[in-house]
Amino acid sequence: MNTERQPAWLDEIRWNEEGLVPAVAQEQSTGKVLMLAWMNRESLLLSVQEGRAIYWSRSRQKLWRKGEESGNVQLLKELRLDCDQDVLLLIVEQIGGIACHTGRHHCFFRQLQDNSWVNVEPVLKDPKSLYGK
Amino acid sequence: MNTERQPAWLDEIRWNEEGLVPAVAQEQSTGKVLMLAWMNRESLLLSVQEGRAIYWSRSRQKLWRKGEESGNVQLLKELRLDCDQDVLLLIVEQIGGIACHTGRHHCFFRQLQDNSWVNVEPVLKDPKSLYGK
Repeated sequence: MNTERQPAWLDEIRWNEEGLVPAVAQEQSTGKVLMLAWMNRESLLLSVQEGRAIYWSRSRQKLWRKGEESGNVQLLKELRLDCDQDVLLLIVEQIGGIACHTGRHHCFFRQLQDNSWVNVEPVLKDPKSLYGK
Repeated sequence: MNTERQPAWLDEIRWNEEGLVPAVAQEQSTGKVLMLAWMNRESLLLSVQEGRAIYWSRSRQKLWRKGEESGNVQLLKELRLDCDQDVLLLIVEQIGGIACHTGRHHCFFRQLQDNSWVNVEPVLKDPKSLYGK
């Protein structure tokens, strides 16, 4: 990635030692916190340029264009940075209404109840159909 | 910390190599994403036991009882874990209505506008008065 052409606002972010920051995605219409993923400079710049959430996959070590397989793209409506300049908040429109690869609306479907994690959100779509497998 | 007495639900969390996970705090009444901080096993267990958010301060390397100085405690109303079991979502009641050490309602007060970060949230209380300095 050519750093010479990068805008100055990217330099105001305090990237961690791996060059990443956590990015929280919140759904504009419902206020639901959908997920947390990570971004590097390139993925954030592309997100802003393309108007959709593009994360950095730490497990695959590559750009993760959210929704590229499932179609469940996150349109970027607003971008926020926190006081310490090391966390991003993305206000998004979640296409398809499904942010989680398990087929649920969002990723935070486990709730602590009496010392156990309980799944409290329904599967809206079979994940096999999301990924065509 | 005596690990023998720790409940099993703590073991279902995928702590990172530093023994931490990111914790997103969302305000129950408004749906606002207030902040993101980090937790270790001890801070999470104490949060659940005491019913308030207790984080792990990475900069100070010690427990951070949110609101201990300012009084702006976060009462823990609900705890969620994500699909990958490595991110927590805390639904909280923010006492005092101020989550950010800058005296703002929440920490995500910088908004990207035309290639610049712009402060778009008012300071509700002088931070000097929050910390008695």
